[in-house]
Amino acid sequence: MKRRSVLSRDEYIEGILRCDRRILSRAITLIESSRAADRELAEEIVEACLPHAERSIRIGITGVPGAGKSTLIEALGQYVIGEYGQSVAVLAVDPSSQVTGGSILGDKTRMVSLAACEQAFIRPSPSRGSYGGVAQHTREAMLLCEAAGYGNVFVETVGVGQSETAVHDMVDFFLLVMLSGAGDELQGMKRGVMELADLIAVNKADGENVACAERTRADAETALHFFPAPPSGWTPRAVACSAITGRGIPALWNAVREFADLAQGNGSFRQNRREQRRRWLRDALEHGLGQLFRSHPMVRQQVAAFESEVLEGRTTPFCAARSLLELYAGASRQGM
Amino acid sequence: MKRRSVLSRDEYIEGILRCDRRILSRAITLIESSRAADRELAEEIVEACLPHAERSIRIGITGVPGAGKSTLIEALGQYVIGEYGQSVAVLAVDPSSQVTGGSILGDKTRMVSLAACEQAFIRPSPSRGSYGGVAQHTREAMLLCEAAGYGNVFVETVGVGQSETAVHDMVDFFLLVMLSGAGDELQGMKRGVMELADLIAVNKADGENVACAERTRADAETALHFFPAPPSGWTPRAVACSAITGRGIPALWNAVREFADLAQGNGSFRQNRREQRRRWLRDALEHGLGQLFRSHPMVRQQVAAFESEVLEGRTTPFCAARSLLELYAGASRQGM
Repeated sequence: MKRRSVLSRDEYIEGILRCDRRILSRAITLIESSRAADRELAEEIVEACLPHAERSIRIGITGVPGAGKSTLIEALGQYVIGEYGQSVAVLAVDPSSQVTGGSILGDKTRMVSLAACEQAFIRPSPSRGSYGGVAQHTREAMLLCEAAGYGNVFVETVGVGQSETAVHDMVDFFLLVMLSGAGDELQGMKRGVMELADLIAVNKADGENVACAERTRADAETALHFFPAPPSGWTPRAVACSAITGRGIPALWNAVREFADLAQGNGSFRQNRREQRRRWLRDALEHGLGQLFRSHPMVRQQVAAFESEVLEGRTTPFCAARSLLELYAGASRQGM
Repeated sequence: MKRRSVLSRDEYIEGILRCDRRILSRAITLIESSRAADRELAEEIVEACLPHAERSIRIGITGVPGAGKSTLIEALGQYVIGEYGQSVAVLAVDPSSQVTGGSILGDKTRMVSLAACEQAFIRPSPSRGSYGGVAQHTREAMLLCEAAGYGNVFVETVGVGQSETAVHDMVDFFLLVMLSGAGDELQGMKRGVMELADLIAVNKADGENVACAERTRADAETALHFFPAPPSGWTPRAVACSAITGRGIPALWNAVREFADLAQGNGSFRQNRREQRRRWLRDALEHGLGQLFRSHPMVRQQVAAFESEVLEGRTTPFCAARSLLELYAGASRQGM
């Protein structure tokens, strides 16, 4: 097996800026690496790309498994490329891959026609690692895609753990993909997510399903009107769509464009990104502090015992936390 | 001015267990104190009370200012005491008091008739301090109220910052208080909160407002049906009510009792509390680690500069976080 050549920092940066998809992909692999040297190089690359980033619209996409997120992204991506001549990058936040070993984008064949487009970049590899790590990696990958010139960045989430709110916190526009009917398929959805949606796409509105999907769309629109408005001043709406027939795809993209005009016009777009940067810093600090803590030998030895005492109700979470923190701070002070 | 006598640890515990409201109140003041010795004593008291706690139903109450949360709690509390002979404790999560100096429960006159009941305990003092601290203090105060024998603990939130989700994470049942009409008064509500509700109370359904409130109730019920079901298997509902006429108060309390029967019967009640304990531990650790970090002299000196670089887009949040964490870890190792 031939080893890939080692790229220098400048080769990475230069490759990303001229939108070499192979190099972009390798840079994202660096971001996801657990090796310290890779991480350090990755951060330098992201830092150097920052002045060229942030010039896209970031669209988060969520929905329960089976809602047809991938096929919808594929149809939407092809529409945007074909109709507007814009480029599209697709990333995924999938903390579940850690457990299942699978990935929502792992199966490359799922976006085969979009992947064939020159103007598309699809990141098929799963983001492994802890939840906080995964979210951070996606944020960094997003910046690299933007520096490479992708004007539209789709971030897909599989809806596990806190991934919906994490994705909502890293995008400009949040799209919820649903199926018709408001029954069983809602079981897997987490509470609170629907209210975050800027747009609800009722998917698979084709064939015999059209009437049912239209009813669900109307119900969704009613529910949306009952929600508090987003800070952008945008009025969330619902669209029935089909990746097969193309129904609703233009309306869907139109909503994204309308939203961008509104939010860029009233300053909320910029304000939201500023707030997000503040939160990313806070999250990165929290994640790093947690890692320092959990990797401490004394903590690793004791944390499970304390946790089980807490779960069984034999001690309070507050006492357990204080004891652990005292152990940690004491040992750190002694350079242990 | 006569100084209050100093109580011993055992006097506190014994006083709480025989439901001496004055001592309970002083113990909560200890919890909220920023003095290390007070905090330590408070934790010992909470720890000793733990075996006597957890025997209540915890009800979180949220809603925008002006929705009439306090008067509704007062009406509900009096109903529960009068009709069922049960006791009621009322606490508040109010991180805003830090800024405004005010408090949602600071004005004692707001619950004057409930406060006059033997079977009621109302904590009027504001919980000051950082958000994480406030949430933790309320959790501890809740355990003390339970040890004192209060079978129903109401936790009111003013709806600032993350307080709704914090309260949702510390209670068994989550009640959202709204006004009729779905327009302006929703402006102040945060997105995602409505979907967390186990019950929506459309308040002030009295006089000329009855018809409008009933319409809003019906709309709310429609929206609720469109939401994913809570893990308890409970079907959230909407009730129109009035603290003045008493309309809907029995229906509201009936819903709480039905919920408790269901959730205790299917084990989700216990499961939820177990999960909450796990989260409380995680939150307390995160909060403590954050405090250790932010109180470090080197961090205090540098954090503002890094944050402004991040906000202006001159560096990535990831690089800033890593630099700060390296400074911190390095200085800690050297015992600085």
